[in-house]
Amino acid sequence: MQTMLESLVEKHRPAAREGKVAEYIPELAKQDPRQLGVAVVDPAGEVHAAGDYRTRFTLQSISKLVSLMVALMDHGEEGVFSKVGMEPTGDPFHSLYKLEIADEAKPLNPMINAGAIVVSSLIRGRTVEERAERVIHLVREMADNPDIDMNRAVYRSERDTADRNRALAYFLKGCGVIDEVEETLDIYFRQCSICVDCIDLARMGLCLAQNGVTLRGKRVIPEDIARLAKTFMVTCGMYNASGEFAIRVGIPAKSGVSGGILALVPGRMGIGVFGPALDKKGNSITGTRLLEDFSKKLGLSIF
Amino acid sequence: MQTMLESLVEKHRPAAREGKVAEYIPELAKQDPRQLGVAVVDPAGEVHAAGDYRTRFTLQSISKLVSLMVALMDHGEEGVFSKVGMEPTGDPFHSLYKLEIADEAKPLNPMINAGAIVVSSLIRGRTVEERAERVIHLVREMADNPDIDMNRAVYRSERDTADRNRALAYFLKGCGVIDEVEETLDIYFRQCSICVDCIDLARMGLCLAQNGVTLRGKRVIPEDIARLAKTFMVTCGMYNASGEFAIRVGIPAKSGVSGGILALVPGRMGIGVFGPALDKKGNSITGTRLLEDFSKKLGLSIF
Amino acid sequence: MQTMLESLVEKHRPAAREGKVAEYIPELAKQDPRQLGVAVVDPAGEVHAAGDYRTRFTLQSISKLVSLMVALMDHGEEGVFSKVGMEPTGDPFHSLYKLEIADEAKPLNPMINAGAIVVSSLIRGRTVEERAERVIHLVREMADNPDIDMNRAVYRSERDTADRNRALAYFLKGCGVIDEVEETLDIYFRQCSICVDCIDLARMGLCLAQNGVTLRGKRVIPEDIARLAKTFMVTCGMYNASGEFAIRVGIPAKSGVSGGILALVPGRMGIGVFGPALDKKGNSITGTRLLEDFSKKLGLSIF
Amino acid sequence: MQTMLESLVEKHRPAAREGKVAEYIPELAKQDPRQLGVAVVDPAGEVHAAGDYRTRFTLQSISKLVSLMVALMDHGEEGVFSKVGMEPTGDPFHSLYKLEIADEAKPLNPMINAGAIVVSSLIRGRTVEERAERVIHLVREMADNPDIDMNRAVYRSERDTADRNRALAYFLKGCGVIDEVEETLDIYFRQCSICVDCIDLARMGLCLAQNGVTLRGKRVIPEDIARLAKTFMVTCGMYNASGEFAIRVGIPAKSGVSGGILALVPGRMGIGVFGPALDKKGNSITGTRLLEDFSKKLGLSIF
Repeated sequence: MQTMLESLVEKHRPAAREGKVAEYIPELAKQDPRQLGVAVVDPAGEVHAAGDYRTRFTLQSISKLVSLMVALMDHGEEGVFSKVGMEPTGDPFHSLYKLEIADEAKPLNPMINAGAIVVSSLIRGRTVEERAERVIHLVREMADNPDIDMNRAVYRSERDTADRNRALAYFLKGCGVIDEVEETLDIYFRQCSICVDCIDLARMGLCLAQNGVTLRGKRVIPEDIARLAKTFMVTCGMYNASGEFAIRVGIPAKSGVSGGILALVPGRMGIGVFGPALDKKGNSITGTRLLEDFSKKLGLSIF
Repeated sequence: MQTMLESLVEKHRPAAREGKVAEYIPELAKQDPRQLGVAVVDPAGEVHAAGDYRTRFTLQSISKLVSLMVALMDHGEEGVFSKVGMEPTGDPFHSLYKLEIADEAKPLNPMINAGAIVVSSLIRGRTVEERAERVIHLVREMADNPDIDMNRAVYRSERDTADRNRALAYFLKGCGVIDEVEETLDIYFRQCSICVDCIDLARMGLCLAQNGVTLRGKRVIPEDIARLAKTFMVTCGMYNASGEFAIRVGIPAKSGVSGGILALVPGRMGIGVFGPALDKKGNSITGTRLLEDFSKKLGLSIF
Repeated sequence: MQTMLESLVEKHRPAAREGKVAEYIPELAKQDPRQLGVAVVDPAGEVHAAGDYRTRFTLQSISKLVSLMVALMDHGEEGVFSKVGMEPTGDPFHSLYKLEIADEAKPLNPMINAGAIVVSSLIRGRTVEERAERVIHLVREMADNPDIDMNRAVYRSERDTADRNRALAYFLKGCGVIDEVEETLDIYFRQCSICVDCIDLARMGLCLAQNGVTLRGKRVIPEDIARLAKTFMVTCGMYNASGEFAIRVGIPAKSGVSGGILALVPGRMGIGVFGPALDKKGNSITGTRLLEDFSKKLGLSIF
Repeated sequence: MQTMLESLVEKHRPAAREGKVAEYIPELAKQDPRQLGVAVVDPAGEVHAAGDYRTRFTLQSISKLVSLMVALMDHGEEGVFSKVGMEPTGDPFHSLYKLEIADEAKPLNPMINAGAIVVSSLIRGRTVEERAERVIHLVREMADNPDIDMNRAVYRSERDTADRNRALAYFLKGCGVIDEVEETLDIYFRQCSICVDCIDLARMGLCLAQNGVTLRGKRVIPEDIARLAKTFMVTCGMYNASGEFAIRVGIPAKSGVSGGILALVPGRMGIGVFGPALDKKGNSITGTRLLEDFSKKLGLSIF
């Protein structure tokens, strides 16, 4: 396994030149596109890792999965899915037009930005800090790592440049779907800025692979919510490339524009990948290829 | 004329019950839908007016015409039309989706909100107040009324409830079309809140009917810019009912969601109408019918 | 006038290289892009013409104006406008998507293909030939030229390659807006294939400029229908460049993808132009520039 | 199992009154909405069935899965996916607008009508009959039932009323994606009209559950193609309710507007359901609820 991971990193690192780091968030634009790391954790706690697996990066859209689980714990399925749908969409993650042309301004799913903003608005707590802290707390629990925290430079960078997300949030407020724009976005930017490495991601993946039970055996997510999260990873986890990823890789995964991918094989392993060179749809180009190769070599597809 | 105007007001006032005042701006929601007033001014300065012609109301979208003329004086046709188009659109005034699905985020024309926000961003001046003041100044000049000013309660009401306009502005900023959201919107809300009555509107109409020369004979708008404004009134002046208005009424006009309509007959008269009950597209329902009747009775259509 | 027309033709002919003939209809693709002709007819019957004004070409979309007038004579305004709107649209002439995303499958206006197909379906007669013949008949009457007929090669060429128009027609049938696809399209292709020259177009323009009375003094169109047609020429006559044309040229005009433009100055003249090199929106590039220059030199804008 | 299936049928049959049979295809409109049947086949060949499991119905969209596999055998993944995408879409099955507003007229996936029409165009053979026969042949092989054939009355009914599908096909032809409209649609209508019962569907499901090997042990589909088909069932199998179905039911399934659903549990069973009362998205309302209940009782979700 160790050797395989190392050779996969070397094999796929050159594809970085076909992609680009996320340029619209200044802090992310500083990342080195040629970095590529991977970590795998199995239920016995054995860890295999290769490449730049120690590099720290922010969760970005991976956090949408965690905030969804917090919102589901707060409001139940009915409460959440009355405000956001469950359907994958063929549109880019920051798309807005369907909110306007549909009969109802209900984001199609919680993995696109509009849907994730609605989800962030649902997280309970007395203050913005407390509400965001609840997402960070679940990340720490899933990863068995109490040191995880947000990266303040990324947080500020996102907050100051999030024009499209503000457009989405004001549109949703105008339709009565959310009440507060800046508070909601503040939670959203904070959760996006949570900082991890590949091993953290792999442990988070293992927690979902075990339906909500961490490596150390602690249940931190109710089973039905963990299953639901895994389902969204399959249908909507890789933006509007989720269908292709299901066919070519076939395991639950959620990506972020930092270049991270949280993946898992049910019951068998959690996987964390980091490769900041992105393809046009916003997924790590090196990370996706590494995962496809890894899945095919070991026959991991759930289909 | 006087008798005709009075009988037109009485005839069309009852149609108010088929419409509604603009409810999304609290200050406008307070208006009495049954009000209806009209004023007509001819080049000799003769004024005929009937109904609630003394009621004061805010320009709202009528101001888009004035800010367009200021921006054209500042940047010329090329400068303005590199950022906003000249084409009518079949979509509602606050529509956003076409900015996303088009190849280029260029609002189709300066009379829809997205286009008008871009135009407001182009108005020169050192401060927001100074820039908005230049629009107010041109309104005063066109109407020969130095007392015209903004209504601060309406201004604050718009500023605090303009979610959709903020969504538009942030979207445009995200696409690099405007630089500043809050400053630009502040100018936009200020110009929308300029307060007039039917006689002011009629005098503004006469100024355009005379290609930029006021009732007192002062040129306040270059002739080519006045002509251009009149053309936009015909193709885009009544939101996405402009085509029907051209067919049924046939004179240049610009409406606002306050219920005002600035209209004119080239070389012959300026017309100001006020009727706050709106149809579904945002035009005064009583005002539109009164103008149609008036135009047919006197054969005013330019077609 | 004669000299001016000749110099305008020479001045604008070179712009042909910036455009292209319509390539999707094989018969039109054979046209020589460098041709450019113009004819002007005044109420006294004086004719001035220059360039390739004797070349014959097909009406294409110009026929939409004529079929609209026939349908209005058959069904009245209410009958026609219950099925097709009056609003200009910012979309290309063969666009379909708005029929799907709108609440109702009602084409926005009779000058886009979807709307013109609905109009063709409304023309009365016992057979397709008879119904198409009624459009041809009105063209002959407007142009005072009984020899006008359709070009059968163009008709067949259109019929065999009209995939997008068939898509539109089947979509409209699926929505219950039209009953018969092939019959309706057959009328549509026949009217598009009516063959004229610049002088015919100029006479047709004069007939509209005189509100429905031909050069020889015969009323062939009711006045209100002629006015309505002129209004559509201003708001929708040049596809989704109508707004710009209104600003830059300012006279009623209707173009076709053959490169023809029927234009007029109310009460003063009819104008026929032919220049088959088209811009991206489907209007004659040389013809549009010639008309702009001509309108500015003589101050013809109605605005 | 037998008792469970019987009680599930009785429990969910009343939900039929919340749905409607497909009314746009006259032959389908004749179906009795209160019918509900289910059959389950396991690898040992044991069959359990309840309700109206002997009623015969047509495959409709379920055939899209079979034609996709034939096309993949003919052209490989690259050949097929150069013309049709792999992404789920939030839009209804007969939607067209995205083909127009996207940069490229490439249907998002092979399970929406536009994509399935492209797939039908790719099936090889000398004649339309031979090409359609190849789809029927694979259905017979998967179901181990040589008597399966098309229902000619349904075929003719579809052919004569398929306005929207013709619109889609002509649109695709206009974009150069398919060459022949009527031939392609003929194959498409023939495959939609293939007539089966619940046991046939269950056997087809078992064949996919065994990655392409039938109940009798015959490989009729290459393994990688069977896996790919199952993946599409999860991401796009239930039209634009696939995301919700994945969450609530969690097994690969493909529905048709006849009311049939082909479903499976990998390695364990094939399931055929028939209930012609449809919900608004075109899925069997009784069948979907029965499957949800069945899946939850037995813990069948793959997630």
